[in-house]
Amino acid sequence: MTAGGGGSRKTHPPELRHDPLSGRWVLIAPDRARRPNDYRNGRPAWAAGPRASCPFCPGREAETPAEVDALRGQTSVPDSPGWRIRVVPNKYPALVPGPGPSPGRHEVVIDSPDHEREWADLPDDHLRDLLETFRRRLRVLENDPAVRYVQIFKNKGASAGASLRHPHTQILAVPEGPRQIRDEMENLERTAAAEGEGCPVCRLIEREAAGPRLIQLNPDFAALAPYASRFPYEIHVWPRRHAASFRETGEAELLILARMLKDLLGRLRAAAGDPDYHLLLRQGPSAGSGAESRAGRRGFIHWRLEILPILAAVAGFEWGTGCFINPVLPESAAAALRG
Amino acid sequence: MTAGGGGSRKTHPPELRHDPLSGRWVLIAPDRARRPNDYRNGRPAWAAGPRASCPFCPGREAETPAEVDALRGQTSVPDSPGWRIRVVPNKYPALVPGPGPSPGRHEVVIDSPDHEREWADLPDDHLRDLLETFRRRLRVLENDPAVRYVQIFKNKGASAGASLRHPHTQILAVPEGPRQIRDEMENLERTAAAEGEGCPVCRLIEREAAGPRLIQLNPDFAALAPYASRFPYEIHVWPRRHAASFRETGEAELLILARMLKDLLGRLRAAAGDPDYHLLLRQGPSAGSGAESRAGRRGFIHWRLEILPILAAVAGFEWGTGCFINPVLPESAAAALRG
Repeated sequence: MTAGGGGSRKTHPPELRHDPLSGRWVLIAPDRARRPNDYRNGRPAWAAGPRASCPFCPGREAETPAEVDALRGQTSVPDSPGWRIRVVPNKYPALVPGPGPSPGRHEVVIDSPDHEREWADLPDDHLRDLLETFRRRLRVLENDPAVRYVQIFKNKGASAGASLRHPHTQILAVPEGPRQIRDEMENLERTAAAEGEGCPVCRLIEREAAGPRLIQLNPDFAALAPYASRFPYEIHVWPRRHAASFRETGEAELLILARMLKDLLGRLRAAAGDPDYHLLLRQGPSAGSGAESRAGRRGFIHWRLEILPILAAVAGFEWGTGCFINPVLPESAAAALRG
Repeated sequence: MTAGGGGSRKTHPPELRHDPLSGRWVLIAPDRARRPNDYRNGRPAWAAGPRASCPFCPGREAETPAEVDALRGQTSVPDSPGWRIRVVPNKYPALVPGPGPSPGRHEVVIDSPDHEREWADLPDDHLRDLLETFRRRLRVLENDPAVRYVQIFKNKGASAGASLRHPHTQILAVPEGPRQIRDEMENLERTAAAEGEGCPVCRLIEREAAGPRLIQLNPDFAALAPYASRFPYEIHVWPRRHAASFRETGEAELLILARMLKDLLGRLRAAAGDPDYHLLLRQGPSAGSGAESRAGRRGFIHWRLEILPILAAVAGFEWGTGCFINPVLPESAAAALRG
């Protein structure tokens, strides 16, 4: 499809490739190999970015592309200190805006000016503002008709894939509806047809909220250990009011969610030895995507936040079969996280 | 489904759980948490097994369950030294034989008596004997009518999920046909229907063998960098003669494959800095499984060996979407592995 042979250091725009056997998509993004952390050494050097050279710290704004969004003091100017949250295009993007075969956007949200402070340590209202920033970026990015899905995710720690220590979150707007979302919508459609009216997830949440896998509950959100958790101490946070996308989250809910997340991440730290984790938003496809029309109604997906702790390596069995082996009973994980 | 709350140290038989949203299977196997390496510390301690205490070294045969297969000198007796290859049930199984809700088998093949020697360093004929051992175990395990699929896989190194240093390979016989195999069979069936007669993979191999993603070729096998490689330096080794299962590999081919694998692993070590890797066999389901009957004919799967180097962590984007980001162009990887 592209010129073969050598030249791994040539510039090469990101390319979305489809595997005919698995049906899987892969983003081939050679320019990401130029990131500060050399991927060839296996585990990125965790302490590679001493504070003085961190491109995400205040005073080093010129080391990132120009900001596209920020929460900053009224007297401060873009791309200078004075911000609390800053959104910039990824300097080593997995996708770039069109024209090109696989247009998309890849943004980095710098969670706070603090080089060390993880979400579990941020003030409630700062975390709330961060969630609001995600909601705003979602609304902006989903206005692009080429965007089929927006994936917001956080890799906390080197074993989760973070290449820079300074806490940050990534947003990838992709031109193909992910297979996993399509599958989930189709499964929910089937379940709804078999069980009767309404969103099957709404019923699942209330059923699980009354059982041994409940971790935290308030009138707006339920935090659950999934029945078929892939990872030890996996946590899903669901809105109890049906909504397909995080875009639909209301003002009051943002603060409630921020408080709950902070509490859960603190509990995870205490119960499981401060593990690295992925945190990701899973929601409906962007309006107009193929996935949406295939599944018929936007209603049959129910957004959630997933916290996926990294307590063991994913092994060959998982890659071969797609079946995960989890050594921690979800009911035990829920009890440990509650207690 | 099971008793909730506490008790993570109680004995609990492995349980196969189905996730209604994704359609994914998860094996909940709490007893695996008792393995020598404590999963709660994130990365297993790589050097945790000093030679004197390795349960896979000769002289410590009593520390494993009794062997079910072995290549050993004629004067030696089972479960004592004198073996070259030894197969034992996994002491911390992800699946156990029935009765029970999720019967299966989990075996460990101890690759050689040598605590350090990886596949790249084994003599050709030893590696051949190892491949023959896999073929023999496949034939034994697939005779069990409860077995739907046999996954043979190797995790080399801690970042690949190995908990013990001594080189070994795992065999998991599972009671459900993996979704990934079913998907692949269905995709091949569709492609075959659209393109005309015969196995689409047979044509793909010959097409790729003439292009920039070829790594090694002989009359029996082709080693290719997949067009949509998920991992940097990913390698697939295909038999050029159509066969659905590794069971069908002939005597002469075993030695040719052993030599090729050894050569490829040496090239990977040189080109990519001796990375950890998964190595896995992907093949048709066991006779009589649902996957087989669904896809109609056993012909439309073509077995392969996959080598999946671990050069970067799988990140939140991949878990959220199922789409991988690969920073190395497969054509560049093939050139580096050829050169």
